[in-house]
Amino acid sequence: MKSYRKELWFDTKSRREFINITPDVQKCLSESGIREGLCLVNAMHITASVFINDDESGLHADFEKWLEKLAPEKPYDQYRHNGFEDNADAHLKRTVMGREVVVAITEGRLDFGPWEQIFYGEFDGMRRKRVLVKIIGE
Amino acid sequence: MKSYRKELWFDTKSRREFINITPDVQKCLSESGIREGLCLVNAMHITASVFINDDESGLHADFEKWLEKLAPEKPYDQYRHNGFEDNADAHLKRTVMGREVVVAITEGRLDFGPWEQIFYGEFDGMRRKRVLVKIIGE
Amino acid sequence: MKSYRKELWFDTKSRREFINITPDVQKCLSESGIREGLCLVNAMHITASVFINDDESGLHADFEKWLEKLAPEKPYDQYRHNGFEDNADAHLKRTVMGREVVVAITEGRLDFGPWEQIFYGEFDGMRRKRVLVKIIGE
Repeated sequence: MKSYRKELWFDTKSRREFINITPDVQKCLSESGIREGLCLVNAMHITASVFINDDESGLHADFEKWLEKLAPEKPYDQYRHNGFEDNADAHLKRTVMGREVVVAITEGRLDFGPWEQIFYGEFDGMRRKRVLVKIIGE
Repeated sequence: MKSYRKELWFDTKSRREFINITPDVQKCLSESGIREGLCLVNAMHITASVFINDDESGLHADFEKWLEKLAPEKPYDQYRHNGFEDNADAHLKRTVMGREVVVAITEGRLDFGPWEQIFYGEFDGMRRKRVLVKIIGE
Repeated sequence: MKSYRKELWFDTKSRREFINITPDVQKCLSESGIREGLCLVNAMHITASVFINDDESGLHADFEKWLEKLAPEKPYDQYRHNGFEDNADAHLKRTVMGREVVVAITEGRLDFGPWEQIFYGEFDGMRRKRVLVKIIGE
């Protein structure tokens, strides 16, 4: 069994942002030399997400609006977590979007349907944060 | 390390539907001959879900009503994704229900608790769509 | 390839509770002797969750309040699942929080970011329930 590990780093310009990291994960897979296995991609921070969906800007605007409805950022004092912090909403938004994805590796490629793309979802940005890519297989 | 891959195909009669795919996944596991490992089951489409819950029709009706409350289908023009498409709500519903499950394989069986069943959740149906089953182990 | 399996048992005093199970999972990892691989931790019951977030009591209070807003426990008769049961809300809450996490194993440790902790989320407690830890690797 082979295993491969890499961290991807992000430092977004805004509090919330979606970044397509599919090319980065594909590069990891090439470096790993693994042809059959599983690839875990997870946020290493608890106010960020890794998820799979469509790379379509209208949909991303819908996600932003929808998440603000489900777990609004403000007023900050509606959350008990927000004493020294102001990011309780980011913990909740990341919970809806998910921490991680597991992707099948088949014949050396990410085994995806036609529109699947991997995104980093930042909900408390403007600081350096990481995603972990771990691949195991042969 | 062994690996196994299969696609399951669906073409639902209605826009939204829940289908118990546990027997299909068990058949994949038998075909694979894998006794110890991990089984990934994921929707290959971004408006569908694979999730684990109870096979109980009342609960499924509750899911339908609840998801419509969290991410209503109509009016279509509330979503920016809905230009040529009308399925923005399906992207959001699938996000709540999840893209994938990972199931432990122990002694050649799906290592489940008493009520766990795997479902395909369709949120934009009436077209041919796929689920991927990938098993790795020994 | 090595594989390891263990069940963790819980019997909470209240209907809903969050329990930090990171030390239990670390103990499993030590017992497994696995240095590189993947660790699956999943609820074996469909009204409970395993998730990763911060070990901060204010945040946990926010989760409780937020989940009650998204999927209220009462009135019980708002859910069709609640005939002989009264736990439909627990199925929905667990769906939001997720059934499982997959954690990378690197150099014999849980490959975590600075604040990641694994929690058992109970939504229909006061009975004996289980979590499965399955680790594969080398």
